[in-house]
Amino acid sequence: MKLCKLVGDRFKERPSDCVIDSHALMVRGGYMKYVANGIFSSYTPLVRVTDKIKKIIREEMDAVDGQEVLFPVVMPAALWQESGRYESIGSEMARLTDRNDNRLVLGMTHEEAAVQLVREYGQTYAKYPFMIYQIQTKFRDEARPRGGLIRTREFTMKDAYSFHTSQSDLEEYYKRCYDAYNRIFARAGIPEVITVQSDSGIMGGKISHEYMLLTAVGEDTIAICPECGYRANMDAAESIIENVRDGMSEKIAEVKTPNLSTIEEVAEFLKVPLNKTCKAVIYQKNHNDEYVILFIRGDLEANETKLTNFLGCDIHPAVITEDSGITAGFVGPKDLKAKCITLFDKSLQNTFNMVCGANKKDYHLTGLDIDRDLDKVEYRDFAKIIVGGVCPNCKKHSITVSKGIEVGNIFQLGDKYTKTMNMTYLDSDGNTQYPIMGCYGIGVGRLAASVCEARHDDYGPIWPISIAPWEVHICGVRSDTPEVKEYAEKLYENLLKQNVEVVYDDRQISAGVMFSDADLIGAPIRVIVSPRNMKENIVEIAARDKSFALKTPLEDTEKTIIAKIAELKKAIADKVK
Amino acid sequence: MKLCKLVGDRFKERPSDCVIDSHALMVRGGYMKYVANGIFSSYTPLVRVTDKIKKIIREEMDAVDGQEVLFPVVMPAALWQESGRYESIGSEMARLTDRNDNRLVLGMTHEEAAVQLVREYGQTYAKYPFMIYQIQTKFRDEARPRGGLIRTREFTMKDAYSFHTSQSDLEEYYKRCYDAYNRIFARAGIPEVITVQSDSGIMGGKISHEYMLLTAVGEDTIAICPECGYRANMDAAESIIENVRDGMSEKIAEVKTPNLSTIEEVAEFLKVPLNKTCKAVIYQKNHNDEYVILFIRGDLEANETKLTNFLGCDIHPAVITEDSGITAGFVGPKDLKAKCITLFDKSLQNTFNMVCGANKKDYHLTGLDIDRDLDKVEYRDFAKIIVGGVCPNCKKHSITVSKGIEVGNIFQLGDKYTKTMNMTYLDSDGNTQYPIMGCYGIGVGRLAASVCEARHDDYGPIWPISIAPWEVHICGVRSDTPEVKEYAEKLYENLLKQNVEVVYDDRQISAGVMFSDADLIGAPIRVIVSPRNMKENIVEIAARDKSFALKTPLEDTEKTIIAKIAELKKAIADKVK
Repeated sequence: MKLCKLVGDRFKERPSDCVIDSHALMVRGGYMKYVANGIFSSYTPLVRVTDKIKKIIREEMDAVDGQEVLFPVVMPAALWQESGRYESIGSEMARLTDRNDNRLVLGMTHEEAAVQLVREYGQTYAKYPFMIYQIQTKFRDEARPRGGLIRTREFTMKDAYSFHTSQSDLEEYYKRCYDAYNRIFARAGIPEVITVQSDSGIMGGKISHEYMLLTAVGEDTIAICPECGYRANMDAAESIIENVRDGMSEKIAEVKTPNLSTIEEVAEFLKVPLNKTCKAVIYQKNHNDEYVILFIRGDLEANETKLTNFLGCDIHPAVITEDSGITAGFVGPKDLKAKCITLFDKSLQNTFNMVCGANKKDYHLTGLDIDRDLDKVEYRDFAKIIVGGVCPNCKKHSITVSKGIEVGNIFQLGDKYTKTMNMTYLDSDGNTQYPIMGCYGIGVGRLAASVCEARHDDYGPIWPISIAPWEVHICGVRSDTPEVKEYAEKLYENLLKQNVEVVYDDRQISAGVMFSDADLIGAPIRVIVSPRNMKENIVEIAARDKSFALKTPLEDTEKTIIAKIAELKKAIADKVK
Repeated sequence: MKLCKLVGDRFKERPSDCVIDSHALMVRGGYMKYVANGIFSSYTPLVRVTDKIKKIIREEMDAVDGQEVLFPVVMPAALWQESGRYESIGSEMARLTDRNDNRLVLGMTHEEAAVQLVREYGQTYAKYPFMIYQIQTKFRDEARPRGGLIRTREFTMKDAYSFHTSQSDLEEYYKRCYDAYNRIFARAGIPEVITVQSDSGIMGGKISHEYMLLTAVGEDTIAICPECGYRANMDAAESIIENVRDGMSEKIAEVKTPNLSTIEEVAEFLKVPLNKTCKAVIYQKNHNDEYVILFIRGDLEANETKLTNFLGCDIHPAVITEDSGITAGFVGPKDLKAKCITLFDKSLQNTFNMVCGANKKDYHLTGLDIDRDLDKVEYRDFAKIIVGGVCPNCKKHSITVSKGIEVGNIFQLGDKYTKTMNMTYLDSDGNTQYPIMGCYGIGVGRLAASVCEARHDDYGPIWPISIAPWEVHICGVRSDTPEVKEYAEKLYENLLKQNVEVVYDDRQISAGVMFSDADLIGAPIRVIVSPRNMKENIVEIAARDKSFALKTPLEDTEKTIIAKIAELKKAIADKVK
């Protein structure tokens, strides 16, 4: 490809609406263009990057016996009603009606379509196990699209669905996919991606993992134990708080706390540490506005995912009305009259001499001992794990917290979909059974952006050769010079003949602009043909990642370039387990 | 691939809902599954066929300097309001709103998105010409999906958009695409596809061509002149009727025609030929129900596409109300009092002594001479061309009519989109100009189905090797026989090593079922390994299209298969111009 023909503009200024580097560089480099909130068009360089990612994914999915299929983007609501998700999924699912007023949805995931496709095929045990996958456009009406391709509303996703006759068969296959995913990320040039235990969310099932690229700009929070290697998404990490009854339980007493409505203000006023307070966090259910009050130790934060999973519905921070019976700012577990669901976090177990709201304006209680003062209470884990907290695996106070981008996820779904959609098979004894499913997703565009986030400098992406839009970038500096033009063009033609993916810049522009553009295109190998180099009978060959820069005699140029391509490819292959 | 692992059911019975063969065979062969009206999922064999078609298309588009991009499926209504098509396109465009009540549409074509993507890039003449294309899912809410993949609501399409600074540059490029399309169809195995002049419909522009596969099950009608090679879609073919004033014009007179309300009945009653009658065809505009009355010679039919293009809006057959002033069954051009748009087809030019309605119940007129009896009338072409009609090119009475499937189309769009969406560039003199566009579409699934329609027998598709899901199908008959099993497996492995695409059937089933399945999968080369063949030290190698069937000594099997593959590929390549 001649660069002068490449459709798309490249420019220097960071667009003001780009919060993260990969987004800014992919806009500046002519990879993508904004169409609407969370919706983009892709130019050729991005299509080339994502095509290579798709090829890697296909190879790895085929290697674990996957069969590529294609489900529809637009599906009848009836299909989603079978599983119950037409009702249970909220506004992130786009809904429409057709010309005959039939209700349709846009696919945001395809468990229902997968079951529909194989429901008849999978009627006898002999057909199992099998896995089908697709690479297809999805639409999820995200409330807050962000970070360019990191969180969009429309995206291309590889989603795979496996079907099994036993949990152990699923687990065995799950392990194969787990490894295949690690290979995919290593082949895409980010072997540092880690797996974490995750929350299964709307997918159902119990065991699931996310693949995380750790980066400060990530929107997921991950709890990591450096002692034992435990890693979990904050949403899934168990919070362990061990309170000890190391003193006397005092009498309960009312204290005046005028205008002190946050737990921090009250603790300071009463000179008690935050972990001797019991705070109320108040939500409402989305569908009926019912109040949900969570009591939790004052130094901890509520984990809304854990709450949502327990309640089985979406929630939002409460708007407290006068007739609710809730005394905003002074809510406590004792003598709470409000009509609401009351929950207790495990961090309150074994606490005593606690400060809490008195359910009376401008008053708090001291000396609360929940087990003494309240009827039998059930404690559950609704808290966010904290830095320095107890590792759920090795039990040391060793938890650290990092930010990450989720680049893939895998789920053991169980029989949630086969049961609700009545997919059955006859086992070898002639009994009717529900198959067990696994599902496995990777967002193609998000992976491209994640690689860019992990591999870039101020000047542009530093693409790993496995997914770079082009392998080699020839800069024909002062290509109006006949020697430069002749040599550069010949080199370009010869490399093309040898199936090297090469972009050739023969524009009559300054070397500075030429190099800036090459930085934005991010090909791993740059070749500089210039009047000065021609005089010395050499060309310069340099790595975009600065790992090498050399001058090679003209007669060795092609040989050297091809050897360097092989070297870079080998370096990536060496990191694939 | 081992056939026993292939997800999808194959069966013998023709599904009752399948009207055309390709649909029936693709359902029976496990290629596709119904999800909703006009919406299907694809199994692996179809994914493999369409992948090969996509690869052919990509190669040909790249060869005419196309750059692959990707537009969104879901687009903001605002983009389509810019071109005016948000309003002008009817219910075939699916509309929805997002969680913030923003209006969105599902892409059914992407002219607007193409202009949006390059509006800034194409600001100076030096960037031109350029062409961008995508292969993407589209949704068109068809009123009558039919024929399986022939007319669906959701489909995968390659759509390309070229941008030019002059009509002559567009025409030159259009010719290159025209040829590239012929190569695509020849490479996909249907070189018999012909081009016809077409109507541009909702796309705008003047010159356009359709690529037609002639077949009785096609839904398009094509006018062909065998004398001069003229070919046009019925919707676009000019109807030429040459009336001669070869007699005296009689006086106009009223005749009683009780209860005779069709022109055929009246002609029979009055003993005049149909071409001496003037019939009224009555429509209403879709958006305001205004009446449109077309007068046309009684032996001809109205072409609704020509009417729609002239009126600039959609129409439907009229429902005639009492207060309309229209005397249903007795409508004529003289003394017509109804409030309506009145149009005259060219077939009425130079007519005299015509029979027409008297605008009075149970009466017709004889002796109508429009030029004498009416105020100045404008005649335009609103008629369907007829078999034996005048060829618009060579003027002979030579027109024949065929049915066809439209497998591709190309349009010279002009500046319709660049003008409405204000895309401009500075020409070499510094003047602001609107670029001129072309667009070029191929439906990938429809092309697959069309090839199946053109290349099949009662037992299954006969895929051309260029797009077959697999090249070779090994039938291991009685593979419980050790010699068969050993040889067939070794052959399978060896062919895979040589990158032959091979499917291997080692199921313990009857040869009959095995061969039926092979027919449905339609691989061009079948290899039969059986106990009897093993005894004779041979295998049978046969073409799915019956062009060869031979027995080869065991030691020559691989060599022979590979030679046959090369032969079949060469036969296709030989038909590509």
